Amino acid sequence: MAQKNIPYKIYLEESEMPKVWYNLRADMKEQHAPMLNPATGEPMQLEQLYPIFCEELAAQELDTTTRYIDIPEEIQNFYKMYRPSPLVRAYCLEKALGTPAKIYYKFEGTNTSGSHKLNSAAAQIYYAKKQGITSVTTETGAGQWGTALAMACVFFGMDLQVFMVKSSSEQKPYRKAVMETYGANVTPSPSETTEVGKKILAENPGTGGSLGCAISEAIEVAVHTDNCRYVLGSVLDHVLLHQSIIGLETKIALDKYEIYPDVVIGCAGGGSNLGGLIGPYMKDRLDGKNAPYFIAVEPASCPSLTRGRYAYDFGDTGNITPLLKMYTLGAGFMPSPNHAGGLRFHGMSPVLSKLYHDGYIDEARSVEQSKVFDAATMFARTEGTLPAPESAHAIWAAIEEAKKCKETGEEKTILFGLTGTGYFDLSAYQSYNAGTMSDYIPTDEDLQKGFDSLPKIPGVQ
Amino acid sequence: MAQKNIPYKIYLEESEMPKVWYNLRADMKEQHAPMLNPATGEPMQLEQLYPIFCEELAAQELDTTTRYIDIPEEIQNFYKMYRPSPLVRAYCLEKALGTPAKIYYKFEGTNTSGSHKLNSAAAQIYYAKKQGITSVTTETGAGQWGTALAMACVFFGMDLQVFMVKSSSEQKPYRKAVMETYGANVTPSPSETTEVGKKILAENPGTGGSLGCAISEAIEVAVHTDNCRYVLGSVLDHVLLHQSIIGLETKIALDKYEIYPDVVIGCAGGGSNLGGLIGPYMKDRLDGKNAPYFIAVEPASCPSLTRGRYAYDFGDTGNITPLLKMYTLGAGFMPSPNHAGGLRFHGMSPVLSKLYHDGYIDEARSVEQSKVFDAATMFARTEGTLPAPESAHAIWAAIEEAKKCKETGEEKTILFGLTGTGYFDLSAYQSYNAGTMSDYIPTDEDLQKGFDSLPKIPGVQ
Repeated sequence: MAQKNIPYKIYLEESEMPKVWYNLRADMKEQHAPMLNPATGEPMQLEQLYPIFCEELAAQELDTTTRYIDIPEEIQNFYKMYRPSPLVRAYCLEKALGTPAKIYYKFEGTNTSGSHKLNSAAAQIYYAKKQGITSVTTETGAGQWGTALAMACVFFGMDLQVFMVKSSSEQKPYRKAVMETYGANVTPSPSETTEVGKKILAENPGTGGSLGCAISEAIEVAVHTDNCRYVLGSVLDHVLLHQSIIGLETKIALDKYEIYPDVVIGCAGGGSNLGGLIGPYMKDRLDGKNAPYFIAVEPASCPSLTRGRYAYDFGDTGNITPLLKMYTLGAGFMPSPNHAGGLRFHGMSPVLSKLYHDGYIDEARSVEQSKVFDAATMFARTEGTLPAPESAHAIWAAIEEAKKCKETGEEKTILFGLTGTGYFDLSAYQSYNAGTMSDYIPTDEDLQKGFDSLPKIPGVQ
Repeated sequence: MAQKNIPYKIYLEESEMPKVWYNLRADMKEQHAPMLNPATGEPMQLEQLYPIFCEELAAQELDTTTRYIDIPEEIQNFYKMYRPSPLVRAYCLEKALGTPAKIYYKFEGTNTSGSHKLNSAAAQIYYAKKQGITSVTTETGAGQWGTALAMACVFFGMDLQVFMVKSSSEQKPYRKAVMETYGANVTPSPSETTEVGKKILAENPGTGGSLGCAISEAIEVAVHTDNCRYVLGSVLDHVLLHQSIIGLETKIALDKYEIYPDVVIGCAGGGSNLGGLIGPYMKDRLDGKNAPYFIAVEPASCPSLTRGRYAYDFGDTGNITPLLKMYTLGAGFMPSPNHAGGLRFHGMSPVLSKLYHDGYIDEARSVEQSKVFDAATMFARTEGTLPAPESAHAIWAAIEEAKKCKETGEEKTILFGLTGTGYFDLSAYQSYNAGTMSDYIPTDEDLQKGFDSLPKIPGVQ
């Protein structure tokens, strides 16, 4: 099919921007198994979620039937500050690869948080504020979620305490300065400020921490503070709902030029970006129409989809969250501290886990970080933008697919999510440039330790 | 006049993007005094510039008559990777200030170099490559120019050596990592690798360096290396020419909505951003039409326009450049090492100096850095984007003007240049957040030392 002259960047007018989020679950033939109360093994009821999440978010978390949910005007206005994000044709990367493939990426890194995380941060803080909540707590790994939340909190007028994975806070001291500029309080995790933090430190004195630990600390503070709630930047169904803005904008932009992707690629840690990006194209698959080939890419050092179990597990190391049915390495799994960047979560979005389990996501791949930085450097040098290590997982797979097209001569259209920029990941780039970066692939024994931490639930698993 | 509904961000289609640069000098009633050969006191001839600049750039440097110069297609394509830059209506800042003013900013920081510097880097490297030059040298202060040049060099295939002001390289270690990721060699300046560096170190052992020192070192290497040229990111007339893309895009975008600014504000170090931003609006002034009120903003610690002399001076501390007639603090002036960010150059663009001297630029203001960071923080918290300290000089003045409008009730349209992001300036934000940032205003005696370094030129000054 002859295509129109495609610009380097496809923009949307404000009038073209989505006014609703898309709830993928409304089109799923089968829902993922329900969130369980770990004390009883019974499905969590709406009211049981209220001590953790504010009411609107709890309702969104359990809503499996409303296909489109209105984006409140205040959130639409917040989005206008940094959205629509650019959809870019990677002409220069294509040329460097000598591929007949057409590569597009949706670039979520033009805001100061440096990633897509701001999409859900704005929504979560808006709803919390509306309910009269006065403070929130959260965890952050690479720091993108914490920064995003700090930006949303200062905008809507909300206090924020961030527990930052200790190894990340040491690798990225300036992320702390950014969050503080936006008014947040930042504590390296595990810390001595919570009971669960003290317990983890006692058991693993030298630990660099993990997202799971930081989540436990943040939830403990939220539950014990008046008018405070915990907010999470990935994994949960309501986060995927907010992130659907990524895929909706992408589809509107590509539709304008009558482009339909053959392959859609996203990096996957907790799954928020991948879930958001694939939304409207996955709808085609769920509706039985022609649809792209979907690829999830994860680090070889934290391979939940490719080597994990599909089981009920806690979302946190301290085992205080509800139980989620997902691909998981076990909440007790600790990723190697040599792993740069995010994508360190032991589990995976229950929605994506279900889609992968049932064959709707076609493939999951894992990749070692040295290859990730090869791809990141090639991308930076051709397309100009220095990518986040997380995003470079998707770049790596896009390059692999484009090379296959070079071999076969196929002119496939490849779409991937460039979730963010690497401006706060430069110690990792330094070590890559210096040739001192090492790869880590957990052995089966390493993984078994994580699996041993999976909860035993009578009558369920 | 009733205005149309103005979006938060005004974009241009690729077809609307400028295909020519605007040469402000073609409309100036009187040209600035010519560049002089310091050995003879005579105006530099075109051929005399060839050992320093490649031929096309030398020609642009001396061209005072061609009003519009075609942007080569290769540079237009490079621009498409990151341009048009967003023109943003600062709705949230306006609301926070409670001002009836309408504030717009042209945001040049969405590319990885983090600033407008890439506009001239691309042009300079393209022309050098075309002439068969194989390597270039340069200086960088805050690191934005060096990063921009590294991006352009890797794109067009050119070797690069960067001399980075030592105090900046210590404040911003990650800037070095970025430049290296794009393949550049980076040396802190003054260094022991050049004769002029050794001399400066012998005279000022503990110096944090200055742009003037780094320029001397870069020129020395360029002149003594085969097929190598020196490139400069600001001050020169050909740099202002390339930067006119900023003002041209701005005017096209505002014209679409029938908006004409009452006030135009830019930060001014060497003058490249200010010169580029004001271009097409200054044309109106030069043509005798209604035009905005132009304000240049500079640091109180390096106040060339507000406290400098309008005189011939060297562009570098080592006194090896041609002489430029400009507002200057003397090439021997060393800005205080406590000064964060860029805008550290002792002189000012000869074009802007002339326009200011003749009253076409209406006003120059200087501001202490603590006030700059007050403005930066307010901007970050309202508009979302963390600004570069340089850019925050313009934000400060825009806020001052908007506050005046609040007092008078005037609905002025204020346009300012947001030259870049502060993602690599976080040690300065850290010190501001911690309350340890200090201000420095040079005494008259401090300035006199710089003026004493001004060259004596028989028959000229």
